[in-house]
Amino acid sequence: MNYHGRVKKLQAKLRRKKIDALLISQPENRRYLSGYRGGDHGIGETSGVLIILSSGPVYLLTDFRYRLQAEKDVPWATVLIYKKGLLKLLTQLLPDLKVSRLGFESHYTLHSTAVKMEDRFAKKGVRLVPTVELIEKMRIIKDEEEIDCIRASVRLNEKVFQEVFPTISKKHSEIDVALAIESLMRRKGAESASFDSIVATGENGSLPHAVPGTDHIKLGRGLTIDMGLILRGYCSDMTRNFVPGKAGKKYVKLHRLVRKAQLAGMEGIRAGVTGREVDRKARGIIEAAGYGSNFGHGLGHGVGLAVHEEPRLSPLSGKKLKAGMIVTVEPGIYIPGWGGIRLENMVVIRKDGYENLNSDMTWLDI
Amino acid sequence: MNYHGRVKKLQAKLRRKKIDALLISQPENRRYLSGYRGGDHGIGETSGVLIILSSGPVYLLTDFRYRLQAEKDVPWATVLIYKKGLLKLLTQLLPDLKVSRLGFESHYTLHSTAVKMEDRFAKKGVRLVPTVELIEKMRIIKDEEEIDCIRASVRLNEKVFQEVFPTISKKHSEIDVALAIESLMRRKGAESASFDSIVATGENGSLPHAVPGTDHIKLGRGLTIDMGLILRGYCSDMTRNFVPGKAGKKYVKLHRLVRKAQLAGMEGIRAGVTGREVDRKARGIIEAAGYGSNFGHGLGHGVGLAVHEEPRLSPLSGKKLKAGMIVTVEPGIYIPGWGGIRLENMVVIRKDGYENLNSDMTWLDI
Repeated sequence: MNYHGRVKKLQAKLRRKKIDALLISQPENRRYLSGYRGGDHGIGETSGVLIILSSGPVYLLTDFRYRLQAEKDVPWATVLIYKKGLLKLLTQLLPDLKVSRLGFESHYTLHSTAVKMEDRFAKKGVRLVPTVELIEKMRIIKDEEEIDCIRASVRLNEKVFQEVFPTISKKHSEIDVALAIESLMRRKGAESASFDSIVATGENGSLPHAVPGTDHIKLGRGLTIDMGLILRGYCSDMTRNFVPGKAGKKYVKLHRLVRKAQLAGMEGIRAGVTGREVDRKARGIIEAAGYGSNFGHGLGHGVGLAVHEEPRLSPLSGKKLKAGMIVTVEPGIYIPGWGGIRLENMVVIRKDGYENLNSDMTWLDI
Repeated sequence: MNYHGRVKKLQAKLRRKKIDALLISQPENRRYLSGYRGGDHGIGETSGVLIILSSGPVYLLTDFRYRLQAEKDVPWATVLIYKKGLLKLLTQLLPDLKVSRLGFESHYTLHSTAVKMEDRFAKKGVRLVPTVELIEKMRIIKDEEEIDCIRASVRLNEKVFQEVFPTISKKHSEIDVALAIESLMRRKGAESASFDSIVATGENGSLPHAVPGTDHIKLGRGLTIDMGLILRGYCSDMTRNFVPGKAGKKYVKLHRLVRKAQLAGMEGIRAGVTGREVDRKARGIIEAAGYGSNFGHGLGHGVGLAVHEEPRLSPLSGKKLKAGMIVTVEPGIYIPGWGGIRLENMVVIRKDGYENLNSDMTWLDI
């Protein structure tokens, strides 16, 4: 990956904003700029932060536990270890680096942390400057190397699905299927799942974010599988819906409807249209069939180093799509007491249309 | 669980602070007060927030996807669904509820979110009041019902270890062992692992937070397994270290040293001593043997609804321990190029000493 180019681009942004250095704590931003793979335990326990000066070297600050990982992943950065907390090290380091305006990620910094930093740094003449999504704005457009990574992630995800699919039977619980999926992901080289897999049988599928339970797979009822993995940092996300055994009439009708909405959404995608317009194409079809109130979420979201990122395809999203963005297209219909049907592909937005990253297995269609 | 009593206690705190309502977004705090099990995708994507009025009913605000889960888990709360975002709903709701001072969790609210809320709410006459760890301070002392839950979580975690332990061989990679552990956890009824399991063979063990890889288990070399699970919301956390095959002299010597430090740490625990004093007991033994610089982390941390919470046992921790707190005791020695040894138990702090929650399998001792 072109870390050097990314850092240079960010440094130019910082100079335009008269920011001497940017403190980067958001894990995907950190990885985007440096390749560092340290894992955080939530926002409260970081495995390190980057300091990018508006010109000059890159610093990676971490603690003892991550030293080897940091030095291995980012040999070109200066790795500094904090023993008495990050804040203390920053309070010493920033004046040494002649930083008087320090940018921080307002959208990935706790309010309490910002208050503490403001207080400590003020005494050293360092002023805090909130920034929002400087790096996310770079990440939203993927270059071809990244698209290749995401393509490989999608392909591996489909391979896992294809291997697990024929083994699914009423002998298995939802948890069994979810575990089979997640084990196979890692055996096949994924870093991890990109989110907790959803396996929902029958009426359980009416919860869009169902948690797999001990219910056994019901024959003749819809089965929702929503799964994704991380490969070389990049996420995939896919939902399949089908009936083990024979599908009933209602299922077939609704599955066709959701599929029609998905195809309409995909066909509506090209650079220059808004997320809202694409959402409308798919939603219009579900509304016309009288199921508008059963489709309560947006049509899709961006995918990259994070499994949920910008842009959104939703009624609220007025931003224009650009070539190189990658989004999911995932209409759904959810009926309490009966179940749910969601179909989800990932597509690259191209100048004149879209590229479907999924192989879109029609053998699952009805 | 005594949700009603917890809410009442919090409401009394709010009245003392002249806060009309508290907005609760921290997932474990939400669960502690209500039992709501919705899962967030990081801090940026919540599955809902609680509004606790200083007196009056409890509100759970969530979106369409979590409606059924919310109504099932918290039937005694008023569940409200936001269609156009949480902020919009709050801006309408708070004046209706006559809230003029709204507390929020400064330590679990993004700086950018606080700025947005301040701006929107000011127009409605609602003032934001940062609070820090109001509920965490309640959570830090566990009642006997919670201790029972954690005991059960620890026991299940040990059971999983005991079943996987005899199957470990050089035919397996670190990932194979980690997957076997995590699958068994969920098959045995855990909600999930409480963190990504660590399985590190030989020199890989020198990274305290090693990520399982494709290396096969090495005979005659140390193997570190750090694992934990979540059962009915409550976490366990345990590290075992042993040698598949025959242990070398250096391993035996260092294992005994770490075990001696662990026992000294445990014996130093009782209500009234500080985290620093307990850390010192264990660290002193490792330092006296000349390995002080190889033990670069604190001796332990609190465990409850979160796998890492207060209190800390570390050289920086001057707070006094109290009866009903639960902490890990986990000294370690890490030697780059050779490996690492860490032993971790969980104990309840009692008035006159401690209760070891682990069965402390001496058959693993040397």
